[in-house]
Amino acid sequence: MATATLLWKGALPGPAELSALRAEMARLRKLPAETLGVLRAAAKAPAIDALRMACATLSLDLANGDDISPAADLAAAKMLTARFPTIVAAHTRLAGGQEPIEPRADLPLAANFLYMVYGKEPDPLAAKALDTYWVTVMDHGMNASTFTARVIASTRSDMVSALTGAIGALKGPLHGGAPGPVLDMLVEIGSAANAQAWLESELAAGRRIMGFGHRVYKVRDPRAEVLSKVAEEMGEAQLHDRTLFDLARAVEQTALRVLDEHKPGRNLKTNVEFYTALVLQSLGLKPRCFVAMFACGRAAGWCAHVIEQHAADRLIRPQSEYVGPRGLKVDAGRGAS
Amino acid sequence: MATATLLWKGALPGPAELSALRAEMARLRKLPAETLGVLRAAAKAPAIDALRMACATLSLDLANGDDISPAADLAAAKMLTARFPTIVAAHTRLAGGQEPIEPRADLPLAANFLYMVYGKEPDPLAAKALDTYWVTVMDHGMNASTFTARVIASTRSDMVSALTGAIGALKGPLHGGAPGPVLDMLVEIGSAANAQAWLESELAAGRRIMGFGHRVYKVRDPRAEVLSKVAEEMGEAQLHDRTLFDLARAVEQTALRVLDEHKPGRNLKTNVEFYTALVLQSLGLKPRCFVAMFACGRAAGWCAHVIEQHAADRLIRPQSEYVGPRGLKVDAGRGAS
Repeated sequence: MATATLLWKGALPGPAELSALRAEMARLRKLPAETLGVLRAAAKAPAIDALRMACATLSLDLANGDDISPAADLAAAKMLTARFPTIVAAHTRLAGGQEPIEPRADLPLAANFLYMVYGKEPDPLAAKALDTYWVTVMDHGMNASTFTARVIASTRSDMVSALTGAIGALKGPLHGGAPGPVLDMLVEIGSAANAQAWLESELAAGRRIMGFGHRVYKVRDPRAEVLSKVAEEMGEAQLHDRTLFDLARAVEQTALRVLDEHKPGRNLKTNVEFYTALVLQSLGLKPRCFVAMFACGRAAGWCAHVIEQHAADRLIRPQSEYVGPRGLKVDAGRGAS
Repeated sequence: MATATLLWKGALPGPAELSALRAEMARLRKLPAETLGVLRAAAKAPAIDALRMACATLSLDLANGDDISPAADLAAAKMLTARFPTIVAAHTRLAGGQEPIEPRADLPLAANFLYMVYGKEPDPLAAKALDTYWVTVMDHGMNASTFTARVIASTRSDMVSALTGAIGALKGPLHGGAPGPVLDMLVEIGSAANAQAWLESELAAGRRIMGFGHRVYKVRDPRAEVLSKVAEEMGEAQLHDRTLFDLARAVEQTALRVLDEHKPGRNLKTNVEFYTALVLQSLGLKPRCFVAMFACGRAAGWCAHVIEQHAADRLIRPQSEYVGPRGLKVDAGRGAS
């Protein structure tokens, strides 16, 4: 909440402001009946599609869904950031054939999410791990989903419309879609002894190694650092089976060496997705909801960009086709976040 | 349909292909129960918000909502273009406290829309006017909503996500939101004799004159030409009261003269919104659904851009903040379409 306020208002809140904000956002967690109805209809849909559908309806209980004043934007930012986890938790339950669990206002955001998924209060270390993950991915400058939110907001359209569009962009495998495949890779590799041969055969076949390389970072993604630490802590506390974590560490070491040998000078280092997969898996979550979990963390950042874009009040409209000579700066390749 | 095929496939269809496409798209018009449920929940919401919510659910009856192959894109394009008018018609009925009317497969797209709104087959001239409007606005190169669809699609996200985002961008008053205010202006002016004084006082107060000026066109928007012609035909056939049309013609003449005197060299000419308002009003539609009507026409164009973007398979991710020194080309001001 403190980090979200920093993004939205440009300053960390004082203790009284933070405590008021926490209470206000906890009250906003409950979903309107219409939104729950959409989630029931979308029980079999991918979680990120269900989040897009549910988010699209979140203007229904706003006093005026067209209001883009700073006060209205801040109110919408709180509401959306508070409700995304409720949506993903409800959909996770419905996808598993279970009834959604109502949010509790007395638990912090991450602890409440795990409560809504599992029906019991989580271990504090698990709640801390999820909170760390969400703070870690809360904002990451300009990227396809944030840019989508800004283009939509630049027409003076509203926060709900902007975030609905951003979810659609995050869904794409070139943007938010990789945490699941990292686990598939670890399962396929199976043991540390198998890592080198597996990785080399993937590279020989011209395929990418999931969880390595980033458009911006040419060093180990600082977010991977933080997330590997919480995954390790959870393992030490025996909150999850250490086997996968140890395998991941071994695969990481081997992959960095193999990538350096086979792609010299490319600096393909561990990215945020590699340890995201481990943290979310260790919380008992399924890969099918990983991208939607990413959206829960990124929501606060998207909102901050919409607030800034509305304040700038300048339409983003490329004058020419994006591939044209006067066009936008466009880059091919991966955009991990 | 012929124009949509030109956009989607790069060639006009032959007679047999066109007839098969018409039959296929007519069958696709009916809304899934889930989408109708969302529209009932959104009966009091603005039409463009209801369209965003309904569109977000349209992946629910696709075999695979993640499939972005050319065949899947074409299938989604047909489905979305066929259903947007059904959504807007159903919402128009629900907003007025009436039950939606099921689409008929034996009527062309525009005629069927008017049938679903009014419960009877429309005059052929009215259907022709609406068809002309939709073809006129079907595509317009790069603009904020089309660009939004392309950024979303560039992550390899799907057609439904891209169009849901595009609707959000079109909602913004700087993009799709002006046709309503044109009517407000005509009503305020009231009579041709009043036009000059009213327009001059607006300009003196530093306000813009709605329906004039365009970011690209410095001549009379060619789309205004076509639309003024169908509005005139409808008036001659006594399908609507000529009074408003005659007033609009007079206001247009006066506005062009006044704008030229007060903003010399700016070339502020009649844009597409000016006559859009007249055509839609003459069909008996309310300004509150005008932006959603725009989206019904533009849907086919958005789909064409998504198909092209998926074929290009290049991520659009600005490397720096859009206001930064290496940033995007950004333009302030109006983007009428």
